[in-house]
Amino acid sequence: MAKNRKPKIQRPKALPPKGFRDYFGGEVDERNAMLRKITDVYHRYGFDPLESSAVETVEALGKYLPDVDRPNAGVFAWQDEDEAWMALRYDLTAPLARVYAQFRNDLPSPYRRYAMGPVWRNEKPGPGRYRQFYQCDADTVGSGSVAADAEICAMLADTLEAVGIERGDYVVKVNNRKVLNGVMQVAGVLNPDDPEMFAAERGIVLRAIDKLDRLGPDGVRSLLGKGRKDDSGDYTDGAGLSDGQADVVMGFMEAKRCDGAATCSRLMELVQGSDIGTQGVNELETISELMAAQGYGADRIDIDPSVVRGLGYYTGPVYEAELTFEILDEKGRKRQFGSVAGGGRYDDLVKRFTGQEVPATGVSIGVDRLLAALREKGRIGSKSKGPVVVTVMDRDRMGDYQAMVAELRNAGIRAEVYLGNPKNFGNQLKYADKRESPVAVIEGGDEKERGVVQIKDLALGARLAAEIETAEEWKAQPAQKEIARGDLVAQVRAMIARAEGQA
Amino acid sequence: MAKNRKPKIQRPKALPPKGFRDYFGGEVDERNAMLRKITDVYHRYGFDPLESSAVETVEALGKYLPDVDRPNAGVFAWQDEDEAWMALRYDLTAPLARVYAQFRNDLPSPYRRYAMGPVWRNEKPGPGRYRQFYQCDADTVGSGSVAADAEICAMLADTLEAVGIERGDYVVKVNNRKVLNGVMQVAGVLNPDDPEMFAAERGIVLRAIDKLDRLGPDGVRSLLGKGRKDDSGDYTDGAGLSDGQADVVMGFMEAKRCDGAATCSRLMELVQGSDIGTQGVNELETISELMAAQGYGADRIDIDPSVVRGLGYYTGPVYEAELTFEILDEKGRKRQFGSVAGGGRYDDLVKRFTGQEVPATGVSIGVDRLLAALREKGRIGSKSKGPVVVTVMDRDRMGDYQAMVAELRNAGIRAEVYLGNPKNFGNQLKYADKRESPVAVIEGGDEKERGVVQIKDLALGARLAAEIETAEEWKAQPAQKEIARGDLVAQVRAMIARAEGQA
Repeated sequence: MAKNRKPKIQRPKALPPKGFRDYFGGEVDERNAMLRKITDVYHRYGFDPLESSAVETVEALGKYLPDVDRPNAGVFAWQDEDEAWMALRYDLTAPLARVYAQFRNDLPSPYRRYAMGPVWRNEKPGPGRYRQFYQCDADTVGSGSVAADAEICAMLADTLEAVGIERGDYVVKVNNRKVLNGVMQVAGVLNPDDPEMFAAERGIVLRAIDKLDRLGPDGVRSLLGKGRKDDSGDYTDGAGLSDGQADVVMGFMEAKRCDGAATCSRLMELVQGSDIGTQGVNELETISELMAAQGYGADRIDIDPSVVRGLGYYTGPVYEAELTFEILDEKGRKRQFGSVAGGGRYDDLVKRFTGQEVPATGVSIGVDRLLAALREKGRIGSKSKGPVVVTVMDRDRMGDYQAMVAELRNAGIRAEVYLGNPKNFGNQLKYADKRESPVAVIEGGDEKERGVVQIKDLALGARLAAEIETAEEWKAQPAQKEIARGDLVAQVRAMIARAEGQA
Repeated sequence: MAKNRKPKIQRPKALPPKGFRDYFGGEVDERNAMLRKITDVYHRYGFDPLESSAVETVEALGKYLPDVDRPNAGVFAWQDEDEAWMALRYDLTAPLARVYAQFRNDLPSPYRRYAMGPVWRNEKPGPGRYRQFYQCDADTVGSGSVAADAEICAMLADTLEAVGIERGDYVVKVNNRKVLNGVMQVAGVLNPDDPEMFAAERGIVLRAIDKLDRLGPDGVRSLLGKGRKDDSGDYTDGAGLSDGQADVVMGFMEAKRCDGAATCSRLMELVQGSDIGTQGVNELETISELMAAQGYGADRIDIDPSVVRGLGYYTGPVYEAELTFEILDEKGRKRQFGSVAGGGRYDDLVKRFTGQEVPATGVSIGVDRLLAALREKGRIGSKSKGPVVVTVMDRDRMGDYQAMVAELRNAGIRAEVYLGNPKNFGNQLKYADKRESPVAVIEGGDEKERGVVQIKDLALGARLAAEIETAEEWKAQPAQKEIARGDLVAQVRAMIARAEGQA
């Protein structure tokens, strides 16, 4: 007997790893529907899909995280049996660089590609911050023309409208790293003849302006000057700029005027005497003109030097899509929804592999934030799409019920037969409720004999149960209806249509 | 100067890790289109999407690989910073078990769910065998009814037709583990009163019949008896069955008759006296009847005891979809395309977590094999969907060209402006060729002045260049056409339609 005694079983926990989650039903459908709308636009713009492997070698991935909001972001990495290190991709840009370097002789040039899928970050999870999330990117590799940047801005505006963000509820803001370089030159921390000089100061300036959102203008100004003590008492060294020098840098971030032309004029004043700065302003002017030629006004795509996120990473134009409508934050205060997509020009990713500089520009859409915005606006998540449930009154007649669902499905109607234990009919209706079924079909022995079935409008039934008080009212507004068995498809279809009309 | 001298740069290799690959353009589109068709059918059958995380804890994943073709399959695993082991999912069933155990109180019961996405296997890659590949699964958890199995068989047949496999080119074969258990009882290697007795022999029998495809009937018979020496000289111990016992087991695999009823009669003879065997045959009969009630004949869904793959893993009905048309293998020999999907009933996955047995049944479609089959049949991969390319004759008029593509895109036509260096016009046309563009648009200064543009049918142009020999013929069949600038959208649309009609 002792032989058969089993050790105490240690059961595994039914949980995903920390920072990971699952997506169910409507959440998956909504995201897929949105990704399809986005990629329809990308496709129309001539971009081709690319699905690279989720796993890359660590050496190919490198360390090029553009997202300064996640400075501690790491990767999930492990060693293969033959000792090689591999890792899950942390974005879709690093794999693009590897793919372009690998296949550059076969790919068209310029190469327009889009990609969508999960990326992984090995960092501390927090509320609403997961270690696996979706990105949806479009990039043009191999074109140095500012028309490529302009095209992506136009595509971004079209994409937002395609997924359901109305005109007026968003703006694509455009800035340019070269203008900032010009400003640094004017401020005396960039010498084109000796690019290494003041590199440390410029690093501090870049990190400072990238923190504008969090620290505000005063905080940035402290960092441009002597330095700044934060709330925890930690001291961050400043760039040591004089007030006059700092004025120039701050002036850049505050150069926004009433329209693109006026903003460019102001920027031109700020970079006077700097070639790189002048070039940057000219690029912004060209983008402004190209947008106007295609009918995009400043209400949709605007020149805005206050966009500083990613300026330290990108090398030319930088763009960011912001949603301008207000939402209530956790503390009940009104605030703008904010950024849902961003990108810009970067010219050095492919160089890591080939030694050749390949110009590239691209955008990444924060899929989950955009979904959250659409939910906020009530644009998704409203309609029930549950299946018609054919109930089982007589478990020996499963063939009859399966034949009914087959008829409904062949007519394109989502339907299923109840597959749990049919003994308790109440459980079957509870199941239908949980599935958000529009209609339940009921056929007992009596109905079978008479060649009829009962169909029940479940949404109406629930409403009536809540509102109606007398038996007379029940009869006047019946949620249940007896129909001929041969009319099943037509009558169910009509009941669904009526229910959807009332929803 | 020494300060600026840089160390020799070790460049990363532009390659994915061994066993991983990338998918480009049409490959991605085709797979997505197929997945959409599959999930449309799953949706119509009442299945809900589930997207679980790609990463699971190692303890939650367990070791439940059903795929006996990949016996050495391992997982990619690593340790988190807090020492917890996590791994990439190796299939979509193990995560379903974890999700169901975690959310069982909130999910409807029965829970019908589908899932699609990549899975990862840490095994030696080989030709056509990758370490990341797609699966597309549908499972019903919480229903012990054989109607749930029948439903999945029907859905599998509908799915194959929905993606383009014609009726007659496939068959869904159904078998049952319980019948095998009955056969084992009759053969004297299973005693219902002492389930542990002969466990070792049954293990050998199960592994032997799972090798029927590779070893053939003679090889299996050796393993049922004394044992078998393979080509390398390695000896595998047999189950030690007598010839009479082995006859019973072999009879099971050869019990297929002309139709389901005849096969079930034969099976009933084989399991006579075994309760579990009788139950299994009854289940097969019920499935046969349910299929008939829904109009699925034996040409589409058939009872076939020669389906043995996975019998060792599943606990009740087992099903496999085979494509019956012939292809030529690597050696030029004709052979049937074979299996593209398989599944069955398993009742113990959730038990690992909760201690409760939860009945479940489900199917997994081998997405890449099904795609290969469709390519073999010429059902996908034929049509060019490249963009219209607007060429750049005058780089200062980029705004004009961008306005043209904007017009085309707004009319739903895939279009792009050439963004490379426009100096060499030949390169622009080569680019259009590489993109498989249907139409190129050309507007030089002269055309601009006269309010016209040239549009060029690129497919026709290529054909003419190959076929036509005299200048007169060129003029009679012009691939290029001058049109009014205002007619751009209408004329391009007409040219694409004509090209598609001729393709």
